Amino acid sequence: MNNDAFLSDFRRMSEIGATENHGVDRQAATREDQQTRRWFATKAQEFGCSVKVDGIGNMFALLDWTPGAPYVLIGSHLDSQPLAGRFDGAYGVLAALHAAKELNEQVRAIQVLGGRPPKFNLAVANWFNEEGSRFAPSIMGSSVFAGLMDEKQMLDVKDSQGITVHDALDAIGFLGHDERPEVASYAEIHIEQGRILEREGISLGAVDRSWYTQKLEIEVLGEQSHTGATAMADRHDALTAAAKIILMVEAVTHDYDEEALVSSIGQMFVEPNSPIVVARRVKLVADLRSDSKDIVQGARATLLEKISALAIEHDIHINVRDFDIRPHRYYPEDGLILAEKVAADLGISIRRIQTMAGHDSVAINTIAPTVMMFIPSVDGVSHCEREFTKDEDMLTGLRALTEVARHLVEGALHD
Amino acid sequence: MNNDAFLSDFRRMSEIGATENHGVDRQAATREDQQTRRWFATKAQEFGCSVKVDGIGNMFALLDWTPGAPYVLIGSHLDSQPLAGRFDGAYGVLAALHAAKELNEQVRAIQVLGGRPPKFNLAVANWFNEEGSRFAPSIMGSSVFAGLMDEKQMLDVKDSQGITVHDALDAIGFLGHDERPEVASYAEIHIEQGRILEREGISLGAVDRSWYTQKLEIEVLGEQSHTGATAMADRHDALTAAAKIILMVEAVTHDYDEEALVSSIGQMFVEPNSPIVVARRVKLVADLRSDSKDIVQGARATLLEKISALAIEHDIHINVRDFDIRPHRYYPEDGLILAEKVAADLGISIRRIQTMAGHDSVAINTIAPTVMMFIPSVDGVSHCEREFTKDEDMLTGLRALTEVARHLVEGALHD
Repeated sequence: MNNDAFLSDFRRMSEIGATENHGVDRQAATREDQQTRRWFATKAQEFGCSVKVDGIGNMFALLDWTPGAPYVLIGSHLDSQPLAGRFDGAYGVLAALHAAKELNEQVRAIQVLGGRPPKFNLAVANWFNEEGSRFAPSIMGSSVFAGLMDEKQMLDVKDSQGITVHDALDAIGFLGHDERPEVASYAEIHIEQGRILEREGISLGAVDRSWYTQKLEIEVLGEQSHTGATAMADRHDALTAAAKIILMVEAVTHDYDEEALVSSIGQMFVEPNSPIVVARRVKLVADLRSDSKDIVQGARATLLEKISALAIEHDIHINVRDFDIRPHRYYPEDGLILAEKVAADLGISIRRIQTMAGHDSVAINTIAPTVMMFIPSVDGVSHCEREFTKDEDMLTGLRALTEVARHLVEGALHD
Repeated sequence: MNNDAFLSDFRRMSEIGATENHGVDRQAATREDQQTRRWFATKAQEFGCSVKVDGIGNMFALLDWTPGAPYVLIGSHLDSQPLAGRFDGAYGVLAALHAAKELNEQVRAIQVLGGRPPKFNLAVANWFNEEGSRFAPSIMGSSVFAGLMDEKQMLDVKDSQGITVHDALDAIGFLGHDERPEVASYAEIHIEQGRILEREGISLGAVDRSWYTQKLEIEVLGEQSHTGATAMADRHDALTAAAKIILMVEAVTHDYDEEALVSSIGQMFVEPNSPIVVARRVKLVADLRSDSKDIVQGARATLLEKISALAIEHDIHINVRDFDIRPHRYYPEDGLILAEKVAADLGISIRRIQTMAGHDSVAINTIAPTVMMFIPSVDGVSHCEREFTKDEDMLTGLRALTEVARHLVEGALHD
């Protein structure tokens, strides 16, 4: 394993779409995403892979050892949130590429000596639009791949400027027509978005399940009027009601144990959003997540009740709609045992862990046995420029992913 | 006075940029503003006026009775807020145009009989961008005319899409080069943005002063992080702090008598505004208005103190900047007496009143003696589709404006 080459490639990749404070801004199908994709394709070809792009912009760097055999996929996503960190997603794609290079060299060496190739082929995946900041919903490319979302419908999704996924992918030259590789199994490595590994001083997390999550779309309908000339008592201000909802969505977490529930609003739109006009309409998106379905549903019920009371108090109308409900997803026990065996072989500390955030692996796990691993992230922060993981932790993760992939191409999880 | 012609023109004009619920959407220098301007120009020419446009898009429909004499200006603004009412501004421009038609017919009839023309000429003004919703600041055209704002600087102002006032005016064909008419005096009629006239059953308000107003630009700087994977305790959420500020800005009105202070937030921008990202930055604009300078300054001091405490409580940074401070402006006593005399002559009930909202007349009053009059508005609502004024009230206002203008062209307020 060439650690220096990996770290040097990681630094080079992080220069694409770099922001002032050591982060990156590479939202899906932007010019910066295009540059990262081109860099990835060039590097993959250099490593001996052939690069394919499917109809939703997923990229696959293929290593064909056994013509016709299915593929073990390893990867993550290269797109980022706006003003994001350089590790979220991109680390996993680059680690997969270097793991593939290592395994390819070993397989070629064995073949030269007359040895048999492994049971499965290997491919590195860069899933399109995991973040969903420009085009909602998130986890788009892997969900289309897994048949959980409809490709045609997703290509019609528009960003806030009215540009479709189809046109944005076409514009950056990554609307592909290649056939999707047949998947045997999947492995992904990602930074932990939380601080459990750091707090406990453990190098690797084996993800056993994802949290139960759901979103609420909340539309507050007030009445537009003049800020300067409407008596306070005569107003039906959608923004003051929305402000109370923002605080309610945060306060509901106090009904439960610390860290049992996260609940927040990150997106809102105010209409008409003029300094001298009382707001007519505010749209908010609330995001509720817990390892317990009961807690999410309990918090949702509390919020609905309080929002109803608020609508009466303010004499305005509030619509609430559930969406993006994601139940618990469990990763297979065999995969967890595999990750634990690899860690033991390499002398790496490991623990089982849950993911609060969504990941491409959650989608792929619905169609193929999947191993999802975390490495520590300093202070547990992500989706911000301050996101940071130490070189040694990235290299530990790279070794673990390489060994997991070696077992997978040899047929692990396929008995 | 041809009342039917006025009402029929008002209905026709209200069809331009009409919205579903009887309002209009004709923001400055949009296609709808262009259509209204063209309609106004055609109508003015039909009434015998020559139409001029100055370098900031103000339109003047001139009636030249005495070559070289200064002009009495009468008018208001044709632009609107988004999803606004059809009376705010547009009523005053059309009333001025019909008043001009009436006076022109009378002057021409007198001239045919060998009589002398009045002391001053007359012009109807449509001031550019009174509303300021697309291009801030508001009251732009009349302020440039009055020398209170710099024309070049205002032409460089950009909307949220990055389009300048210069380019927007050019695009609709209303970036003029005509010389500005020399102003002798000014009169404007407008709907009351408040419910005092309605409540007291009075037909006309003579505006004696404008309220003391100021705005605060509030920038809340938190830290961006993942909504799903950042523990509640580790967050520095700019949006929850902003929500508290929205409520503070409203709550400060309770420190004073009812209707003594209006204080509100109508505009806010959230960054990055992604459903799964804790907000990094929120920008808010607060609008404080009172007839008492002490009350505005007291409320401002209370807010600054509470905002400082909030920044400490949330461990985030909050910047506050004063802007758009508008001291009391007094309309001349002579003009008030003139309005009262006209009302008495016509048998119209009148009272003195203050304006909480800004108006073009506030700007013009700094360079020429100005008469500002209000007619009642049902429920006192404005800047919304529900804004409504009865036909009979519009016609009463038209008669009053015509008579005030008659006195002004004959030399009233110029002894």
